Amino acid sequence: MVDENQRHNDKMKKIKAARDKIMESKTQEKGLIMVHTGNGKGKSSSGFGMIMRCIAHGMPSAVVQFIKGTWMTGERKILTEKFSDECTFVVSGEGFTWETQDRERDIAAAQAGWERAKELILDERIKFVLLDEINIALRYDYIDIDEVTDFLLRKKPYMNHVCLTGRNAKNELIEVADLVTEMSLVKHPFREGIKAQLGIEF
Amino acid sequence: MVDENQRHNDKMKKIKAARDKIMESKTQEKGLIMVHTGNGKGKSSSGFGMIMRCIAHGMPSAVVQFIKGTWMTGERKILTEKFSDECTFVVSGEGFTWETQDRERDIAAAQAGWERAKELILDERIKFVLLDEINIALRYDYIDIDEVTDFLLRKKPYMNHVCLTGRNAKNELIEVADLVTEMSLVKHPFREGIKAQLGIEF
Repeated sequence: MVDENQRHNDKMKKIKAARDKIMESKTQEKGLIMVHTGNGKGKSSSGFGMIMRCIAHGMPSAVVQFIKGTWMTGERKILTEKFSDECTFVVSGEGFTWETQDRERDIAAAQAGWERAKELILDERIKFVLLDEINIALRYDYIDIDEVTDFLLRKKPYMNHVCLTGRNAKNELIEVADLVTEMSLVKHPFREGIKAQLGIEF
Repeated sequence: MVDENQRHNDKMKKIKAARDKIMESKTQEKGLIMVHTGNGKGKSSSGFGMIMRCIAHGMPSAVVQFIKGTWMTGERKILTEKFSDECTFVVSGEGFTWETQDRERDIAAAQAGWERAKELILDERIKFVLLDEINIALRYDYIDIDEVTDFLLRKKPYMNHVCLTGRNAKNELIEVADLVTEMSLVKHPFREGIKAQLGIEF
């Protein structure tokens, strides 16, 4: 056991030395373009986790919710009721697009959301902007992908972060992003007749 | 344009009908065993996003942080300073295991964390327990995987949720889980000399 512990500690010492060396080379800060995509859970919830981190550190932030409009989700409730000074919360869209079944209305709502998003991103006081489910609006061309990527590359203040979520992120967006995470479904209880539940899915 | 809109709306109508049919079959509720793993971002932050959802809905929750111990992360700050009534926050471990380089101390800390975790999971008032980075403790056998899976399957109250995060989730854990998400790294700025940043990584 002593030997096993010693071997483990030696291994950890090597890992630490290697990590320290890597860390020394990571010195820059930069506002990131982040994308959360894939068919798994956690795309929006990790975006909201980052919003909570920003609130904790006193960094002003903002959310524009595309598509998911009518629900009083947990994230909407807590941010609008408890942190309206720290986080600007904008709802655009009136539910999932298959609910409205009105393309013109969806386009108008998505465009309005994008106009607000641009203002929020340009506001240098706001350090982090979450564009929740914007990928769905981009997928159906409710918003022009080239306009979005061009704006992010040319207009976003250098130090400010933007996170864009939703399935089926377009390749053009992945191309311009600094950090892309794919959330994949390995196993899901939905297949076994379990419904979306409070606190977990919304 | 009118035709295009009409085609789109018809398509959405079909999607909605298919979705409604699926939704009708999803009627059960059940406390879930969830796992967030993979080498990408969002494993812990989406866990904390769910904690915020629980707080919003008035569902008592708890966090046990394994491994990540010494940092005052944003999530720790906001939960301990603003939501200590709603969420029990336990820190176990004194930093990443390659920092301590003391296997016996790491094992003792992980075991103590697991004992607290069991109490919290057994407490029926607590609806959601997040075991953050427990997969690292399981990977190095600081905690016995069979004890954990056996406890989750046999002792966890039926309606309560548990979420376990961290890279390299063991197969035994994936086997017993209801919902498994793999967060994969598609693109990461770390490679380009960008360091971990406030509000984003912690």
